[in-house]
Amino acid sequence: MARIVTLLTDFGTADGYVGEMKGVLSTLAPNAVLVDVAHDVTPHDVEGARLALARYWRRFPEGTVHLVVIDPGVGSPRGALAATSEGRFLVGPDNGVLSPALLHADARCVSLPLPAGAAPTFHGRDLFAPAAAQLALGAALETLGPEEDEPVIRRTPEATRRADGGVQGEVITVDRFGNAVTNLLAMRGGEIRIGALALPVRRTYADVASGEPLALVGSSGLVEIAVRDGSAATKLGLRRGSEVVLVVGRKE
Amino acid sequence: MARIVTLLTDFGTADGYVGEMKGVLSTLAPNAVLVDVAHDVTPHDVEGARLALARYWRRFPEGTVHLVVIDPGVGSPRGALAATSEGRFLVGPDNGVLSPALLHADARCVSLPLPAGAAPTFHGRDLFAPAAAQLALGAALETLGPEEDEPVIRRTPEATRRADGGVQGEVITVDRFGNAVTNLLAMRGGEIRIGALALPVRRTYADVASGEPLALVGSSGLVEIAVRDGSAATKLGLRRGSEVVLVVGRKE
Amino acid sequence: MARIVTLLTDFGTADGYVGEMKGVLSTLAPNAVLVDVAHDVTPHDVEGARLALARYWRRFPEGTVHLVVIDPGVGSPRGALAATSEGRFLVGPDNGVLSPALLHADARCVSLPLPAGAAPTFHGRDLFAPAAAQLALGAALETLGPEEDEPVIRRTPEATRRADGGVQGEVITVDRFGNAVTNLLAMRGGEIRIGALALPVRRTYADVASGEPLALVGSSGLVEIAVRDGSAATKLGLRRGSEVVLVVGRKE
Repeated sequence: MARIVTLLTDFGTADGYVGEMKGVLSTLAPNAVLVDVAHDVTPHDVEGARLALARYWRRFPEGTVHLVVIDPGVGSPRGALAATSEGRFLVGPDNGVLSPALLHADARCVSLPLPAGAAPTFHGRDLFAPAAAQLALGAALETLGPEEDEPVIRRTPEATRRADGGVQGEVITVDRFGNAVTNLLAMRGGEIRIGALALPVRRTYADVASGEPLALVGSSGLVEIAVRDGSAATKLGLRRGSEVVLVVGRKE
Repeated sequence: MARIVTLLTDFGTADGYVGEMKGVLSTLAPNAVLVDVAHDVTPHDVEGARLALARYWRRFPEGTVHLVVIDPGVGSPRGALAATSEGRFLVGPDNGVLSPALLHADARCVSLPLPAGAAPTFHGRDLFAPAAAQLALGAALETLGPEEDEPVIRRTPEATRRADGGVQGEVITVDRFGNAVTNLLAMRGGEIRIGALALPVRRTYADVASGEPLALVGSSGLVEIAVRDGSAATKLGLRRGSEVVLVVGRKE
Repeated sequence: MARIVTLLTDFGTADGYVGEMKGVLSTLAPNAVLVDVAHDVTPHDVEGARLALARYWRRFPEGTVHLVVIDPGVGSPRGALAATSEGRFLVGPDNGVLSPALLHADARCVSLPLPAGAAPTFHGRDLFAPAAAQLALGAALETLGPEEDEPVIRRTPEATRRADGGVQGEVITVDRFGNAVTNLLAMRGGEIRIGALALPVRRTYADVASGEPLALVGSSGLVEIAVRDGSAATKLGLRRGSEVVLVVGRKE
């Protein structure tokens, strides 16, 4: 059984830490297929990693093991998890980064014990990679540790209804292109207000001229603010937490 | 048949978009071997991706599927292509990025129809990855769409003969080391003029002292401007489009 | 026999050079499993690559081929090596980057001849990748070239005993998190002095408050200077070569 193990970390690659993890995986689970998702997550950005994981974890086939090590609390009493959800497996620190999978009704979690001799600063190598290898080899989740009923859960902040009928939302992440992803659900025909700026919700970038801002429904179903052939983050000064308002039915 | 699928995008990796594409590929073509080429192409740099593809596409064995998603026109009426050339397959937007393969005499192209429900901002996931998976599974090119006879072609700008006998060229790309690759064909014994600076064409970096500029014939057969142990782009102010002149036979 | 070939370079990926190397490997050794370690090593940073290799080379299973191309002397008379050590294989320039493996008692080295037609600026593609492919196919080391008895060796600078009883060390590398790794061996209970700053050696980041500096024993057994939830390099002005002193037994 050649299971896929995906890797998501904030380690960068140049220091060799990811190399160490891949060595451990290759040694313990020689038939596992290693697939890099990313190692350039902003250091310690649990929230960014959670949102990335939300995008990809169910795109992989059942049986895939998703190894996620964004772990600012390494060495502290924070827990360590292995989980299964919708037929996939997940391994990582108990800091909310695995929430997209843990929130499913069929999700089950165990608490991973710390192996003797594990370096207190590198659980990715000494705790999480070995656990992922065990799952890739077909080990039952329950053999990895005792059940964990209350894992830490992080949720995307919810948009709220305003007195004037609008929906108050915020930017939850900015991608490499400078697109600002919001927590507003798709609503074609609506309009997005950012301060004094009003942007109708369009279908795609090409619906406005080059350099112009627009709102659209992104590929994960959330409203995004973009600038065609440019960066909305730079041009409009948007970053995580920036306020945006959805107005249903155009006013002008 | 375990076919290789290579990936070249400008998505970065931290946002999880490449993760989604790899998930789609792994699900649809479980035996395909995924090989990352790059995801850090400058956003929307079709020209840079075209030049990178020119370097590597024929280095891979026949049957390889090259998936290339640098797609500033996503959601616009720009076409989508699958192609075969010299025994390899290619998939990507019809914006010229696939030109290095399409220019071969035996190249054939089909136009990919947009699947129902495809996100208008992420054809990499919903259109191109599924098409690459089909080819990796051994589907005949013709089954993917109708023939496309006039794909968009981008070409490296041609150097021109000057009245004084020199050859007028330009920098076509600058690599990570700051080497400036030109559109001038190799000519040992010639000399490169950049403004008032004259650089004989050398064999390799070690032919000049550390910190000194030189011209040489790069590994793709084109003249490059370099600085030993340094960056020619920084030191000489070179970037894509900078003018360079080849003079055959040294004057001094 | 499906051998792993790992890749460590300073080429970046966007220019397509790594793509070319992977194409050569895939063509010559179709069953080899390619594993990226890193391509974002600082350009020409032989020392940083050496330290990364030290971390991971023995974590991979026996039979693994480690391909390392940080090669500022490409085209000069510097040698080219293939080696075996502790059951693993290594291929790269003879500039000391392979030292972590070459220093083992059972290490053996051969000198790789330059293939006819090799580009003088890209031995990664034309010399090292083909040699790695041969080893991945199971070729005996001796068939690749004549024995090389005196490869270039680079060593981590040694800490020295001071007149006052302290141990004088230095920062040998700074990782992506801004942790400064020193050449001081682990010694719990000791204290690190950086100028006027005195830092007891702690177990892990969580032993101090957020934003506070600390010393600890890193995952490779060396003393590191860190700032919890921050960058020690930035906050304390540390970089490779910065002086640090280990004092055994706290004075205050």
